[in-house]
Amino acid sequence: MRERELHLDVLAQTESIFALSNGYLGLRGNLDEGEPHGVPGTYLNGCYELRPLPYPEPGYGDPESEQTLVNVTNGKLIRLLVDDEPFDVRHGELTQHERVLDLRAGLLTRTARWRSPGGGTIQVKSTRLVSLTQRPVAAICYEVSPVEGPVRVVLQSKLVANEPLPPRPPDRHGLVRPPPALVPERSQDSSAGMVMVHRTATSGLRIAAGMRHDVVGPGKPRLQPDRGDDFARVMVTAALAPGQRLRLVKYLAYGWSAERSPAALGDQVLAALTAAQASGWDELVRQQRDWLDAFWDGADVVVEGDPVIQQAVRFGLFQVLQAGARAAQHPIPAKGLTGLGYDGHTFWDAETFVLPVLTFTHPAAAADALRWRRSTLPAATARAAQFGLPGAMFPWRTITGSECSGYWPASTAALHVNADIAYAAWQHVVATGDRDFERDTALPLLVATARLWRGAGHHEPESGFRIDGVTGPDEYSALVDNNTYTNLMARRNLTAAAAAVARHPEQARSLEVTAEEVAQWRQAAAAMVVPYDPRLGVHPQSEGFTQHAAWDFHRTRPDQYPLMRHFPYFELYRRQVVKQADLVLAMHLCPDDFTAAQKARNVRYYEPITVRDSSLSAATQAVLAAEVGHLDLAYAYLAEAALIDLNDLNHNTRDGMHLASLAGAWTALVAGLGGMRLRDHGLSFAPRLPRRLDRVAFRLWFRQRRLEVTVRAAEATYRLLTGAPVAIRHYDEELTLTQSPVTRPIPTIAVGPAPAQPPGRPPGRGRHAGE
Amino acid sequence: MRERELHLDVLAQTESIFALSNGYLGLRGNLDEGEPHGVPGTYLNGCYELRPLPYPEPGYGDPESEQTLVNVTNGKLIRLLVDDEPFDVRHGELTQHERVLDLRAGLLTRTARWRSPGGGTIQVKSTRLVSLTQRPVAAICYEVSPVEGPVRVVLQSKLVANEPLPPRPPDRHGLVRPPPALVPERSQDSSAGMVMVHRTATSGLRIAAGMRHDVVGPGKPRLQPDRGDDFARVMVTAALAPGQRLRLVKYLAYGWSAERSPAALGDQVLAALTAAQASGWDELVRQQRDWLDAFWDGADVVVEGDPVIQQAVRFGLFQVLQAGARAAQHPIPAKGLTGLGYDGHTFWDAETFVLPVLTFTHPAAAADALRWRRSTLPAATARAAQFGLPGAMFPWRTITGSECSGYWPASTAALHVNADIAYAAWQHVVATGDRDFERDTALPLLVATARLWRGAGHHEPESGFRIDGVTGPDEYSALVDNNTYTNLMARRNLTAAAAAVARHPEQARSLEVTAEEVAQWRQAAAAMVVPYDPRLGVHPQSEGFTQHAAWDFHRTRPDQYPLMRHFPYFELYRRQVVKQADLVLAMHLCPDDFTAAQKARNVRYYEPITVRDSSLSAATQAVLAAEVGHLDLAYAYLAEAALIDLNDLNHNTRDGMHLASLAGAWTALVAGLGGMRLRDHGLSFAPRLPRRLDRVAFRLWFRQRRLEVTVRAAEATYRLLTGAPVAIRHYDEELTLTQSPVTRPIPTIAVGPAPAQPPGRPPGRGRHAGE
Repeated sequence: MRERELHLDVLAQTESIFALSNGYLGLRGNLDEGEPHGVPGTYLNGCYELRPLPYPEPGYGDPESEQTLVNVTNGKLIRLLVDDEPFDVRHGELTQHERVLDLRAGLLTRTARWRSPGGGTIQVKSTRLVSLTQRPVAAICYEVSPVEGPVRVVLQSKLVANEPLPPRPPDRHGLVRPPPALVPERSQDSSAGMVMVHRTATSGLRIAAGMRHDVVGPGKPRLQPDRGDDFARVMVTAALAPGQRLRLVKYLAYGWSAERSPAALGDQVLAALTAAQASGWDELVRQQRDWLDAFWDGADVVVEGDPVIQQAVRFGLFQVLQAGARAAQHPIPAKGLTGLGYDGHTFWDAETFVLPVLTFTHPAAAADALRWRRSTLPAATARAAQFGLPGAMFPWRTITGSECSGYWPASTAALHVNADIAYAAWQHVVATGDRDFERDTALPLLVATARLWRGAGHHEPESGFRIDGVTGPDEYSALVDNNTYTNLMARRNLTAAAAAVARHPEQARSLEVTAEEVAQWRQAAAAMVVPYDPRLGVHPQSEGFTQHAAWDFHRTRPDQYPLMRHFPYFELYRRQVVKQADLVLAMHLCPDDFTAAQKARNVRYYEPITVRDSSLSAATQAVLAAEVGHLDLAYAYLAEAALIDLNDLNHNTRDGMHLASLAGAWTALVAGLGGMRLRDHGLSFAPRLPRRLDRVAFRLWFRQRRLEVTVRAAEATYRLLTGAPVAIRHYDEELTLTQSPVTRPIPTIAVGPAPAQPPGRPPGRGRHAGE
Repeated sequence: MRERELHLDVLAQTESIFALSNGYLGLRGNLDEGEPHGVPGTYLNGCYELRPLPYPEPGYGDPESEQTLVNVTNGKLIRLLVDDEPFDVRHGELTQHERVLDLRAGLLTRTARWRSPGGGTIQVKSTRLVSLTQRPVAAICYEVSPVEGPVRVVLQSKLVANEPLPPRPPDRHGLVRPPPALVPERSQDSSAGMVMVHRTATSGLRIAAGMRHDVVGPGKPRLQPDRGDDFARVMVTAALAPGQRLRLVKYLAYGWSAERSPAALGDQVLAALTAAQASGWDELVRQQRDWLDAFWDGADVVVEGDPVIQQAVRFGLFQVLQAGARAAQHPIPAKGLTGLGYDGHTFWDAETFVLPVLTFTHPAAAADALRWRRSTLPAATARAAQFGLPGAMFPWRTITGSECSGYWPASTAALHVNADIAYAAWQHVVATGDRDFERDTALPLLVATARLWRGAGHHEPESGFRIDGVTGPDEYSALVDNNTYTNLMARRNLTAAAAAVARHPEQARSLEVTAEEVAQWRQAAAAMVVPYDPRLGVHPQSEGFTQHAAWDFHRTRPDQYPLMRHFPYFELYRRQVVKQADLVLAMHLCPDDFTAAQKARNVRYYEPITVRDSSLSAATQAVLAAEVGHLDLAYAYLAEAALIDLNDLNHNTRDGMHLASLAGAWTALVAGLGGMRLRDHGLSFAPRLPRRLDRVAFRLWFRQRRLEVTVRAAEATYRLLTGAPVAIRHYDEELTLTQSPVTRPIPTIAVGPAPAQPPGRPPGRGRHAGE
C-alpha cells in the first residue's frame, strides 16, 4: 500500500489503514512527530476501562457497566527539531512525503523531505514495525539527514500517557465523555531502559510501557533522559553536514496485567526491551520478513485482471492476520487494534467472518481466538444462569467475556452468537483435523452451546422444536419466532455437539454429558422448525416474515441510508427490509439445508430488500450470488467488501478497519468464486469466474496440507503443495490430490438476469454509508 | 375512611390515601406541621420539569427528554408551638389521633390530643379541602384549644418552595437525582395575601402560590408576616385558657402558566384568594358538599353483604372523581395528583380504565379529559410523521402530549393506545349522545387514529389486513404480529371513524377526509386478521402465542414476583406468561367478536398463565370471570382491584393511588357483576351476583338520564331516576324504562369449576407485589 502524498483531510482514515498490529499490541499509523493527528492510538488487546451504562428504564439482566478499550501510553512519538524549528508538516515546505505499508515485510515506511520555515532542509526516513515474533515489542528506525546545507537537529523520543485527544463526538450512548484516564503508578529508568507504569482508574488494570534506544550519528551523540508522571523522554542532538545521518532505533515494549505488581510488570517490560535490543533492528526486520514469508506461502491470493482488487484482497488478508496473529487468549475486536470503533469490542463477526479466514490461512491464530472464547465460559455460563437457561450464553459485545450491550433486543436476544461460536469451533476441527483442540476447546464450547439451545427452544406438538423470540443476524428485525438462520445453526450446533461427544467420551463425561442429554440434542435437531413459505417458494427469514409489509423503497431518499439513523426500529422491524444477509448467510453456512432451486429463489427474493447498511453483508451476498450463477454481481459484492476501508465506503474508517468485511473479501473470493464449502467429510470446490477476471488463485491450509487452487474461465487446477495426499471435491467429482496438479473443466451454468438491489443500493466501489 | 390511630410506619401510604385533589390541584395528606412526613407533595396538574433521558444506545425517534411532575410550593404547612414546644407527634404524648376522609363532604379532618414534653396539653382539629367549586383553591381550618391548663400557642402558617425531601431511591432510570429545583422569581405580600412566584429551571413554567388567613381567638390575635426567597410565613400567637380556642382559616390558591408574567400570574392567584376568602370557610364547605351530593346522586354504588368492599368501591370512585373533576384540559395521571409515581405521567389507563367510569358518573370530566387528548393532536401528528406514518401516534406516557418513554418496545410499539383513545371517545359519544362533543372532539380523534391504523397495517394476500410488530396490553410480550386486542380495537376504531364521518360530513371535509379514505378504512376493518388457534379452540393473544413455550411456574418462587424484576424480558417475551389481561381485555371491550363458548375457553386458557404483575388486570379478569359465570372468582378480583391501595397490595401506595385499579373496581362491579356493555345501539346488562353478596346497586348517567340498577340473587330491578324514557337490555330482552321500576329474573348459568391461577397468584385481599 503506497500513499504518495500526504492528505491531511483523510489523516484519520490513513492512520487506520497504516495501523500496525500483531494482535497483542496495536499502533495507529500516526505521524512520528505526533501532530497533526486524526486519532492518536496505541492499544493493548484486552486492556479495558469500565464505564457505567445508562438506561432509560433498566431491566433485569441489563449489564450495569461496559468495557471500553483504552488508549494506552503512546510510544510512537519521535519529535524532530531542525535548527530549533519543529518538524511539522503543516509548516515549512513538505516537498516530498510517502508512506508505504509493505504487506510482505510487515513494515510501515515513511519518507519525507522538508524545508523548515528557517530554511534548513532535511530528509527523514522512519520505518516502524510491530513484531510478529516478539509479541510485546515494536520498534522504529528513525533516520534524518540534511539535504542542502548543514543542519543542527534534535530528536526527542517519548512515552506519553494520557495524551490530549482531539474533541470527541458523542459516543454510542449519546454522551460526550473524556477518555479513560490512566493513573501514574511507578516510573523507572536505568541503563536498561525507561519504563512507566500506569493503572486504569476503575477496572484497575496495570499497564507498563518501556523504551530503549540505539543511536548512531556523527560525534557520538549522547542520549539525555528526563521524565514526569505522564511522560518519559530521551533527547539526542547532532550537527549534521550533508552526507551525514542521525539514526535512532527506538525499541518499545508493553505489558498489562490485572494481577502483577508495578515492579513485576516493569521488569517484564524491561526484559522484553532487552531481548529486542539484543536482536537489534536488522534482526527484528529479518524475523518479521521470515514470519510473513511463511504466512504468505500458505495464504496468498491472486486476482488476475483487476489490480485494485488484487491489492485490496491482500491488504484485507494482512489486516486479518495483524488482528489475530499473536492475540493469544484475547479476543479479536471488530476493528482489530486499529481504532476505538465499537469501543474495542468483539462480536459474532469474529467467529463468523474472521476466524474462517484464519482457520484456513493461519490456523494457530484461529485456535487461539477460540481458546479465548473457551476461557470466557464461566462468564457465559453465569449469564445463562442469570437468564434461567442451561449451558452458556455468550455476550453480544465484550472484551472480557461479560456482556457490554445495553440494548438487549439487538444483542442478548441474538442467541445465534452461540451457534456462531460453535460453528467456528466445529469448522476449525474439521479444517485442521486437530483432535486435541477438539477435545480441549471445541468440545466444551459445543456442549455448553448445545445445552443452551436445548433449554432455549421447546418441542411444540404442531410445528416442531421452536426457538422463539430471538433476533437473527439481520438487525432490521428483532424478537422473532424461528429465525431460519438461528434454527439451522442451532441444529448444526446440536448435532456437532453430539458427534464431538461421541468422539471424546471421557472428556464429555467430565463435562457431565449423559446419553439422555445427547439424545435430547438429537431429538431437538431432528424436530427443528425450518420456516418455509410454499406460496412464494422461499424461506422466510423468520416465521411470518414474508407476510410483513414491504418497505417503501421509492419513498426512501439516498441520504436516508443507513436507515436506522433516519427511521425508527419500530418501523424497520415491522417490514420486509433487511440490513444484512441473514437467510442468505444461512445458505452459505448451512449449504445442504437448501436445494439449488431454493437457493436461487431465495437470492432473488432477498436481494431486492437487502440494503447492506451493515458491512457484514456484501461478502455473504457475494458467496450466494456466485453459487447461483450471478458472477458479475458476486464480483461487485467482493469488490465492495474488499474496498470498504481503502475507499472509506462507510465514512468511518477513521474509527478502525472493518475486519469482518476485509475477511469477507477473502471469503467472497474463496467461498464465492472458488465455491469452497466445508463439510464433516471434507472440502469441496465449485469454482467459477466472472467475465472480468482472467485468473484467481488461492492457497490454504487443510489438515496440515498446503493446497493451491487456480481458477480460470473454463477450468480449475488443484495442487497439493505440502503434505500427504488428500481428497477434495470439484463439483460432484472426488479428486485425490497428490504432488501433481489436477485440472478439471468448470461446468457451465444457465442463469437468468441478476436480481436487482433496492433502488440506489447496488454494490459499488464508491462511497455509500453503513455501519 | 377513618384512621383511628397514627402509624408512622405507613405514613407515606396514608398520605396517599388521604390526599385531596380536584384534578387541578393536589395535596398529599401530609400532617399540617410538615414533619414527620413520608413524601411531602403538592401538585398542579400539567406542571412539569424536563429531564434528559439517558440511553445505552440511542435510536432514531427516542425522546431526548422526559417530563416529570413537579412538587410545587407547599401551602399545607401550619406549625404549632405549645409553650414554645413544637407540636410533633414523635415527641410528647399523643393521646388521641384520628383522621377522617369524608367522601360525601369532600373534607379531610384530623383531630389530635397531645401533651407536650413540657406538659401543656392541647386539642387540635384541622379540616382540609381542595375545592371542587373553586378550582385553584384549597383551604384549611385549623383549631387549637387547651385541654387541661392554659397554654400559650404560636401558629406559623407557611408557603415553602424547594422543601427538603427525604432521600429518594433511584428513579426509574436507575439514577439518584435531586428533585427539580424551583427558581424564585417574585414575591409580594399585601393585605390581599402573600404570593410567591417561582419558575421551573428547564421547562420554564411559572408557578404562583398564595395564602391568606382569617383568624379568630381571644385577644384579637394579630398576623405577623415575614418572608424569604423560598418561603412566606405568617405567625399568630395567643394565650388560651381552658374553653378558649384559636382558629385559623388558611386560604390557598395556585396557578401556573407557560406564558403569563410573574405579575399577571401573581394577580391571578390573589384574585382566587380574594374570592375564596369572600366565600369564607363555611361557604366553601357547603359548596363542596352540594357539589358532591349531586355527584353521588348519579353515581353511588351499593355493595350489600361486604362492608369492606362497600367502602373500598366508594373510596375508589371518590379518587377517580378527585383525579378528573376539574382537570379540564389537563391529563389524568396514572396516580392522579396523589403522588409522584410514574413521574406524574398519564398512560392508556386513563382512557381505558378511568374514563369509562367518569363517562357514566361524571360525564363532564370525561369529556374534558378527551378534550385534553384532542389538544395534543399536533404533537401526536408530528410523532406519527417522524415515524413515517399517517394520522396521529399518541404517546405511551406523557404530561404535555409528547412521548416520555425511552424503552420503545413496551411503549411506542404499543400502538393500541391510539385505539384505546378512540374507544374512549366513541364510548363517550354513545353513552352521552353528545353530538357536539362528537363533532369537535371525538371525530378528530377517530379520524387521526383511523389514519394511523390504515398506515400501520397492510393487506396481505393470504392472511388479510395485518398489524405486525406491535406490543399489546400484556407487557410480558412485545413486538408481536397481529395482537388480537390491538387488531380488534383497531377494527372498531376504523369503523367508528367511518360512522362518525358519515354523521359529520362537513367537519370531516375540514379534516380532508375523502370517500376513498373511508372506503379504505372499511376495507381494512373488514379484512382485519383475528388470530385463532383451531387446535386449542382459543384466540392466541397474538399470532403464534399459543405455540410459545410455557412458563415454568413451578420453578418460580413466590418472592420472584413481579417477574420483571427477577427475570429478563427476553425470557418473559418468549414464553406464555401474561402480565395483565390482554386477550381477556379484548373480550371485555369487543364483546361481540367472541362467542360465549370462545369466551369461556379463552378465560380457562388465560387464567392459569396470567400473573397480574400489573394493577391493570384484576378488574378486567373480574369482568370476564363474571360473564362466563365464575362469580366467586370475579368477586375476588373485584376485591383485589378495590383494595389495592387501602391494603397496599403492591407495596407502592406511598407513590400514589392506583387510579386505574380503583376505577376498575367500579368496572368490575358494573360491567362484571352488573354485566353492563355499551354498543352503538345502546346499553345492556346481564347482572349476576356472587353468593357472598345480598345486593348490588349502582347509579349511572346515560344519555342525560340517571338510571339505577339493583341486582339481587334472583332478579334485577331497573329504575329511571330522571330524564325521558329510554330503552336498555336485560340479557336478551329489551326494556323501556319509564318512571316505574322494572324487575326481571336473572337466568341461571351452568358453569364448571373456576379455572386456577398460576401457583401462588390467586386474587386476594392481602399483600402481593406488582406494578
